[in-house]
Amino acid sequence: MLRSMPEPVRTTHTDVRVRFAETDQMGVVHHSVYPVWFEAGRVEWMRQRGLSYKELEESGISLAVARLEVTYRAASRFDDLVRVESTLALARSRQVVFEYRLTLRPSGALVATGRSEHVPTDRSGRAVRLPEAWLSQL
Amino acid sequence: MLRSMPEPVRTTHTDVRVRFAETDQMGVVHHSVYPVWFEAGRVEWMRQRGLSYKELEESGISLAVARLEVTYRAASRFDDLVRVESTLALARSRQVVFEYRLTLRPSGALVATGRSEHVPTDRSGRAVRLPEAWLSQL
Amino acid sequence: MLRSMPEPVRTTHTDVRVRFAETDQMGVVHHSVYPVWFEAGRVEWMRQRGLSYKELEESGISLAVARLEVTYRAASRFDDLVRVESTLALARSRQVVFEYRLTLRPSGALVATGRSEHVPTDRSGRAVRLPEAWLSQL
Amino acid sequence: MLRSMPEPVRTTHTDVRVRFAETDQMGVVHHSVYPVWFEAGRVEWMRQRGLSYKELEESGISLAVARLEVTYRAASRFDDLVRVESTLALARSRQVVFEYRLTLRPSGALVATGRSEHVPTDRSGRAVRLPEAWLSQL
Repeated sequence: MLRSMPEPVRTTHTDVRVRFAETDQMGVVHHSVYPVWFEAGRVEWMRQRGLSYKELEESGISLAVARLEVTYRAASRFDDLVRVESTLALARSRQVVFEYRLTLRPSGALVATGRSEHVPTDRSGRAVRLPEAWLSQL
Repeated sequence: MLRSMPEPVRTTHTDVRVRFAETDQMGVVHHSVYPVWFEAGRVEWMRQRGLSYKELEESGISLAVARLEVTYRAASRFDDLVRVESTLALARSRQVVFEYRLTLRPSGALVATGRSEHVPTDRSGRAVRLPEAWLSQL
Repeated sequence: MLRSMPEPVRTTHTDVRVRFAETDQMGVVHHSVYPVWFEAGRVEWMRQRGLSYKELEESGISLAVARLEVTYRAASRFDDLVRVESTLALARSRQVVFEYRLTLRPSGALVATGRSEHVPTDRSGRAVRLPEAWLSQL
Repeated sequence: MLRSMPEPVRTTHTDVRVRFAETDQMGVVHHSVYPVWFEAGRVEWMRQRGLSYKELEESGISLAVARLEVTYRAASRFDDLVRVESTLALARSRQVVFEYRLTLRPSGALVATGRSEHVPTDRSGRAVRLPEAWLSQL
């Protein structure tokens, strides 16, 4: 008998409050902060899928960042509430890709979009295959 | 009589010593640090061309980052000496593009490459033309 | 007739999820991150008292940090949920002091304690008096 | 015959160029950056004493920060050259203390002073004795 599985959710979101320390002297969030929010977004994506990135790390496997792209659409500012939407775009044994969309809350104004490519690596930094338990969950 | 002008230097370099605070629990430099080094690299590029980014900022004009790309080739680690090579790839009144190449010193091993697109903006964040004095120097 | 005013709440808390980027190669949160969490804590303290630090900044007044003390009791780690308790310890027209207590959730284990002294300053960095509206609310 | 040993240098300095990313919307260096510069200063202090903190870390021993104090005297700004003077104030098998003095170059204007207390720990975070080879060099 075939059992139809629910389509797994591909996009989740998490909200971050902009910290004062994240601004620069232009009065906006420094552009190097966005990749940190992307990272927080994909960790929450995994959590909502029942996957703990902390446990993956403890098992000796990391999702090393191989490539990063960010397109900055509008500034975000101190104390803004920024929604980080994270989408799994690709999941293979040796490559995982996430895409991101940052918007202001509650207006929904687009702040930035981005994309990160990851390679599963062991503690010595060598590329390895993602564990089967993870691959089947992604 | 034609006077041939020296070809302006398009690539400069600056070396950064990896700080402990820049590492993460994978034991390598966190990927969000590279854009910060790129920025340090292009500020030094300008300085070596006789341009002060500090003065441009003080005049009310910023080179806002519109797009960022980083390709991570190999890890860098605490206390490494990293050479940041910065190259001006494009300079127009409304767009400036830099490219970067990070290598380890003294081995020359490639760590990362990257690219940043910039738009001159005024203090309110509106796109403006780069001052002629800057454009002619780039 | 005397009207007894409710004692204003002196301590509030906000929870932060430890970001991967906040760890270092010792596998714990880097010590320079705690002041950033203190800052997030005092901004939330103000918000819960009905005060917007964003608006104070927009009015041209900052609470510049004049002194900082942190005592590190135990490590915090990636993905930990850390409770930041912030307490207003002193509020005068020319000096504001906050104290902090960081604990792990849900265990309550003590991570760090700290203290920050602030001086109200204008945009040029000169010490000024805190606006009366703020002083009466603190 | 007695051989008089040179008094070991207790204070060394290293200069840091303020990065744009290190500023905040007040237009000055964010206060959480100073502990990062202190750290860079004490790593250089060790290097000039012939000690590699990288090697100590690789041997499994860290100088965990147990307490931090910073007094902020004046702002530093983007592109400033800041001199970090680091002084070893105490070196015992289970406690090491450094003091710091930050000044602007070339004016010598005082920016900040600070102090960090350290406890030697092993990879599991337990307090250990500093290796004899290090203790004799400090």
